[in-house]
Amino acid sequence: MTRRLKLTIAYDGTEYSGWQRQPNKRTLQETIEDAFSDYTGEAVPVVASGRTDAGVHALGQVASCDFPWNHSAAVVQRAVNFRLPLDVRILCVEDVSSDFHAISSATKKRYRYQIEDVEIGDIFQRKYVWHIPKALDVDAMVESAHYLVGRHDFASFQAAGAPRMTSVRTIYKLDIIRRETSPRLLLEVTADGFLYNMVRIICGSLVDVGKGKEPPRWIDHALAAKDRAAAGPTAPSLGLFLMQVWYE
Amino acid sequence: MTRRLKLTIAYDGTEYSGWQRQPNKRTLQETIEDAFSDYTGEAVPVVASGRTDAGVHALGQVASCDFPWNHSAAVVQRAVNFRLPLDVRILCVEDVSSDFHAISSATKKRYRYQIEDVEIGDIFQRKYVWHIPKALDVDAMVESAHYLVGRHDFASFQAAGAPRMTSVRTIYKLDIIRRETSPRLLLEVTADGFLYNMVRIICGSLVDVGKGKEPPRWIDHALAAKDRAAAGPTAPSLGLFLMQVWYE
Repeated sequence: MTRRLKLTIAYDGTEYSGWQRQPNKRTLQETIEDAFSDYTGEAVPVVASGRTDAGVHALGQVASCDFPWNHSAAVVQRAVNFRLPLDVRILCVEDVSSDFHAISSATKKRYRYQIEDVEIGDIFQRKYVWHIPKALDVDAMVESAHYLVGRHDFASFQAAGAPRMTSVRTIYKLDIIRRETSPRLLLEVTADGFLYNMVRIICGSLVDVGKGKEPPRWIDHALAAKDRAAAGPTAPSLGLFLMQVWYE
Repeated sequence: MTRRLKLTIAYDGTEYSGWQRQPNKRTLQETIEDAFSDYTGEAVPVVASGRTDAGVHALGQVASCDFPWNHSAAVVQRAVNFRLPLDVRILCVEDVSSDFHAISSATKKRYRYQIEDVEIGDIFQRKYVWHIPKALDVDAMVESAHYLVGRHDFASFQAAGAPRMTSVRTIYKLDIIRRETSPRLLLEVTADGFLYNMVRIICGSLVDVGKGKEPPRWIDHALAAKDRAAAGPTAPSLGLFLMQVWYE
């Protein structure tokens, strides 16, 4: 009898063409499924809460799979981690009921985007932050971010290529955090769901405000336009981290 | 007329065969000298405070060079950084007197060694920490480290292959730091000079104590033996950072 497992996964997306399996590309799904099949000797399809794009990282991606054996969760975790490359780690394995589904059971998600706005960035973070060599106006960004919080049609903040039934989403929280111990600026956003490239377009737009290219209120007009061309550029993938996925 | 410049340099040593220029190997010295000569059109030899080994990092390596032009220090810094790969940055350029010499004028240095003693390490730090999957006994390590502070003959903590006139050195400070905000354990050591692999052998020895393989006092016997075989293993290079070099 198979049982359903919930996996919490961290990965450094630098060397991967995103989550989803694709021919002739190194993907996270394939890498993790290969580790499982090397361990069990059979195919173990792994479904994630959502795809992450090429170069995007995760500290708390969630996936589910049906597992054929009765090994304890801790044993499964160790066996799979042993077979994974060092840029992917299973942080947690839990038994869940058979109606758990990593995509459809998800109720909200949190992403983080890392920026470093100093002339010379931290070289040890260069693969994980968007380096902008001049200080940003954080107060303007915070003011601008305020307009995005709540239930809105985010059509302006959606890349072409992955149409959904509706582009209405609810952002519960959108914080711009400057920690005293680090030169990094963190953009943290929690929503009931995200459109394709939504966090990266929000981030690119807020950076335009932080650079003084646009006033804070501009983002409200961009939102109202429901047109991708009205918002700012798409921030690069390397600064983006999927932090957490919530389930009922 | 040439002038002497003091350079403060950070580098991620992962992709380099150490500081010193060697045939058919990618080194930091060659990379930085190439950036200078691409900028000036002439050879600019760069001398560092000391070689760092293959895979060792720096946050405050110091080097000196004679520079042929009268560009301001800030312009030189920007021009060289523009020509360097992203894993090397010149953090500071200063004019110094012509008797300044990066090696012989150095009076003390500080190194940091990073350890992570948890089962699953931070994947984003995997190239910069020595991962030990079980918690170390930090109190025992602190007690043991105490024996090494002061003026001693560190012959037991010196790798073969780079003999010096004397193996007597003074360790001014040797701290083992567990920060609350991070799962990392930092070993910070300041001395008037270091023998070949000295920090890595000290670290490997203290980790043996932290694992309970040896009691804290053992390190005092290792020191007294003046024999490399009496000390512990050499910690891997990836956790080591040259942090600071002091000059009179």
